[in-house]
Amino acid sequence: MRKRKVPDVVINRLPLYLRVLAEIDPEQTPIISSYELGERTGITPGQIRKDLSFFGVFGKQGVGYEITTLRAELCRILNLDRVVNVGLVGVGNLGEAFLRYGAGRQKEVLNREGLVIKAAFDQDEQKIGRHIAGVEIFPVWQMPELIARLKLTIMILTVPAGVAQEVFDTCVAGGVKAFLNFAPVKLKIPAGIRVHHADFTLQLESLAYYS
Amino acid sequence: MRKRKVPDVVINRLPLYLRVLAEIDPEQTPIISSYELGERTGITPGQIRKDLSFFGVFGKQGVGYEITTLRAELCRILNLDRVVNVGLVGVGNLGEAFLRYGAGRQKEVLNREGLVIKAAFDQDEQKIGRHIAGVEIFPVWQMPELIARLKLTIMILTVPAGVAQEVFDTCVAGGVKAFLNFAPVKLKIPAGIRVHHADFTLQLESLAYYS
Repeated sequence: MRKRKVPDVVINRLPLYLRVLAEIDPEQTPIISSYELGERTGITPGQIRKDLSFFGVFGKQGVGYEITTLRAELCRILNLDRVVNVGLVGVGNLGEAFLRYGAGRQKEVLNREGLVIKAAFDQDEQKIGRHIAGVEIFPVWQMPELIARLKLTIMILTVPAGVAQEVFDTCVAGGVKAFLNFAPVKLKIPAGIRVHHADFTLQLESLAYYS
Repeated sequence: MRKRKVPDVVINRLPLYLRVLAEIDPEQTPIISSYELGERTGITPGQIRKDLSFFGVFGKQGVGYEITTLRAELCRILNLDRVVNVGLVGVGNLGEAFLRYGAGRQKEVLNREGLVIKAAFDQDEQKIGRHIAGVEIFPVWQMPELIARLKLTIMILTVPAGVAQEVFDTCVAGGVKAFLNFAPVKLKIPAGIRVHHADFTLQLESLAYYS
């Protein structure tokens, strides 16, 4: 119930708070004010207090938030206090880059639970059975079975635009609830499914303003 | 002067408005209300009206915005009514994926001016002189000269984290004002330079909430 009520834009900001907090040594700086957190994230202190209050997290008036507690709370809210199993479909250049990138990031966060890429899928028989950065590539027809067996709850789509909807539908039917989609296509998304579009074009177009 | 006053978050939303407008045939639907634009973008009508008012763009009370005019205005504001020359540094898996992705997108927007990737750079001699999706790969030492000659105003950084700052500094010295950075590193950014971080980790972490 609670999950329905929190706006997606609020959820999207939580990882940023978490990242900033991770850069601070709580032994040296045990407490952070919403003002300082605002300075470091570029989000206004009022917005930060409002975002955190959605989850019943409040700082001490005139003091701030205890960093260790706030980090633990954010991890718990984002389900990052346990392992979240991620799959990837489409091991072309982008898929391969992502697997290597993911491996690099996982090393950085080894000291806590979190996101782990457990399996990759491709239709090219040449690629089946290969490992990239420790992740095995399986045939796409095995997807429904492996989604269930490996408990994949997030899927990264790095497939060509032409097959994206079909792959997406298969994953949804298999029980995946959250997607990071790199295919430049507008997916038909059923209710209850969350899709983030990794859209470089929008980012580049807004950069053109500053060019 | 004007550019300084518009918040970056507003600029970041303009390409989304432009995309939604591009999907509508102005012959059939010449006018759109901020309410409809809100429905299609997920941004509140009030926010949309406020965003556009920064640029002196106002809809007709009780009617809305003329789509053709609004598209032209947004293109002009974002500098997309002319060619914006883009460079890319680091032709690994991700860089190569980006070049191919960019080429696909450019075909879609052939009927207007906009972002064009003009040159790629790498330090691997094996790659120099190759073309990917029509874009030539040059040695990194030629970067300062080519930034000036090809008027590259946006640079995409798909380099390893270890060299990102050095490459960034070279581009800034060469006159590049806007960056899309894929390297998982916190860059030291001088005033007046705009950097967007394409950070998959943050996107994945917020997806974990829905997993």
